[in-house]
Amino acid sequence: MDLRIERLQRQAAQCSGVLSLAGGLPLTSLLPTAALLGSVRELSPDQRDEALQYGWPEGSDALRAWVADGLRARGARVDASDVLITSGAQQALSLLVFVLGLNGQRVCVDPLTYPGALDLFRHHDARLVTEGCARVRYVVPGVSNPTGLGMAGAERQHVLGAPADFLIADEAYAELRYDGLTERPLFLDAPERVFHVGTLSKTLWPGLRVGWIVAPPSFRAELLDAKRDADLQAPSLTQALAVRILATLDWRRHLECARSKYVARIARLMHSVRRRLPEFSCVEPEGGFSLFLQCRERRLDEMKLLEAATRLGTSFDPGRMFRANADGAGCGLRLSPCNVPEELIDEAVRRLSRAVAVCRNAQ
Amino acid sequence: MDLRIERLQRQAAQCSGVLSLAGGLPLTSLLPTAALLGSVRELSPDQRDEALQYGWPEGSDALRAWVADGLRARGARVDASDVLITSGAQQALSLLVFVLGLNGQRVCVDPLTYPGALDLFRHHDARLVTEGCARVRYVVPGVSNPTGLGMAGAERQHVLGAPADFLIADEAYAELRYDGLTERPLFLDAPERVFHVGTLSKTLWPGLRVGWIVAPPSFRAELLDAKRDADLQAPSLTQALAVRILATLDWRRHLECARSKYVARIARLMHSVRRRLPEFSCVEPEGGFSLFLQCRERRLDEMKLLEAATRLGTSFDPGRMFRANADGAGCGLRLSPCNVPEELIDEAVRRLSRAVAVCRNAQ
Repeated sequence: MDLRIERLQRQAAQCSGVLSLAGGLPLTSLLPTAALLGSVRELSPDQRDEALQYGWPEGSDALRAWVADGLRARGARVDASDVLITSGAQQALSLLVFVLGLNGQRVCVDPLTYPGALDLFRHHDARLVTEGCARVRYVVPGVSNPTGLGMAGAERQHVLGAPADFLIADEAYAELRYDGLTERPLFLDAPERVFHVGTLSKTLWPGLRVGWIVAPPSFRAELLDAKRDADLQAPSLTQALAVRILATLDWRRHLECARSKYVARIARLMHSVRRRLPEFSCVEPEGGFSLFLQCRERRLDEMKLLEAATRLGTSFDPGRMFRANADGAGCGLRLSPCNVPEELIDEAVRRLSRAVAVCRNAQ
Repeated sequence: MDLRIERLQRQAAQCSGVLSLAGGLPLTSLLPTAALLGSVRELSPDQRDEALQYGWPEGSDALRAWVADGLRARGARVDASDVLITSGAQQALSLLVFVLGLNGQRVCVDPLTYPGALDLFRHHDARLVTEGCARVRYVVPGVSNPTGLGMAGAERQHVLGAPADFLIADEAYAELRYDGLTERPLFLDAPERVFHVGTLSKTLWPGLRVGWIVAPPSFRAELLDAKRDADLQAPSLTQALAVRILATLDWRRHLECARSKYVARIARLMHSVRRRLPEFSCVEPEGGFSLFLQCRERRLDEMKLLEAATRLGTSFDPGRMFRANADGAGCGLRLSPCNVPEELIDEAVRRLSRAVAVCRNAQ
């Protein structure tokens, strides 16, 4: 991560008065914290002992079964044994960098995409491209990050037909489409070349670090070894708690509730943005909990704007974090309305608009 | 991991009647499970929310401070900001493989050492050697795995003087020396080339996946990036629970209790081994919870013995798992008495002796 961005965001996180629009954090109030407390109490002594001991590298069978059930409901023919539990979706990506030998290879990504993937690929000397042949095509189907847009039918066919040896489909936000539709997982259409990645980080708790991967069968043994090499296993405790919570939670209702809260917050954020930041354009997201703005004026500098915003008591994620190629892209901002009390979203945007004015006047 | 070993050990783990001597699992009854339950309840609403959200990649400040305190008590001049929390000690090793560029490099290890490190180095095409020049010397000071032996003064000087660019000191078991002595951490004597690795997995709970690394300052920024690339962060939840437990637990007493239980179990195991397995020699461990046996008869085959043992209702870790070079090493066994009720340790060894007899008769 760009050190200057990190420094400013840490600075913002430390000030209690800051109304931050940065970060891809789910809404804390959505998370069933009471259920977590209950879950710990409800573990039987045996389950508790198991939750605190070493487990197998592939993860909890019950959790793998839950993941497989979810995929079967979307048409996939998978069972628990096809699923590898990872320490979040990020680890799934990092295992794939190793297993697919991406060092020095061409990796094709969307022009705007998940920063954790971009940094990972860059640190392993992958050559990031946005079109053409590649060892891997990385996509975020369902709900993209940072734009919140889904993948239209034509785009889906384009991605499946991409001249890449493999596809990584990172479904981090896919269950948070506001219309509740979850697309057919890409691996159903190309099971021998699609690696399907999922996570509980956006729908349940990031702090659990529970993600998963369903890999083409010929890669599974090597992935399991890579997982063991990386950290032996995902934490037994967080897996056990996730299993317990998922067994009692009405998942469909939980997602419906999450979507309705996110769509309402995003609407509020867009309303403020349109009123207070007329120099920025944005496309209405189809899901998730962030909004990507692009400045119509080319000269506004993202980093100067972030500095001014931090001084004025707000923050955002600068567009360069999400760009495969930042040259000449102008000024972009990802805003998330989850870290700020709903009634203060407008105030956060007002501070941002003042920061824009400060930067303009300084030009 | 050798697929045959894995298959047999999974088989043993699935049979309820098996008295397994395999696995490096701490004694479940030692773990303060009740304290865990209490800890979850005692988290304030803010702490709870934090425990379920994303955190910074370096880990919980309170946990880093606890690690630093422990090292300062051993003479190190470190503070919380010098510590990076990892997802167990294994992850610390895997981050170092990347940061130190060990692919294709010579890595010097003890002839018998931790299998997770050996597999990791091998999968990254490191060339394992047991002497001579190397990019890295990997050591397990304090209490070695699998022999349970400490590092005598002369050996310590030898290790520090090894012709290696860097040293990795993996202190997984170091606090479990039966005499309660914890040596001066190696990085005090060579702060610019020693990477210090620790974990709660052997002293508290493996299922938390909490470990740490203290790296030479010039590597810290790159290590932090590597940690973020690997899995963003160690789980917020398990870190928060660890902090809470460590704040209330009498750590010194907890370790004393652990050591006294382990030394008693190891004594019982050794007693049975000497009586029932006279063809094996073993060196009395100075700490930890395993015993390494070496067969005086060269012809006994480890894998055949493991197969026979599994059939006869016990299990062990074959020596080849721990060997940098398995050629001509004969038959070795690591036994751990933690998975078996204390009064059944002798029965487990009796089954093992029957397995030895079966193998001998088949020769």
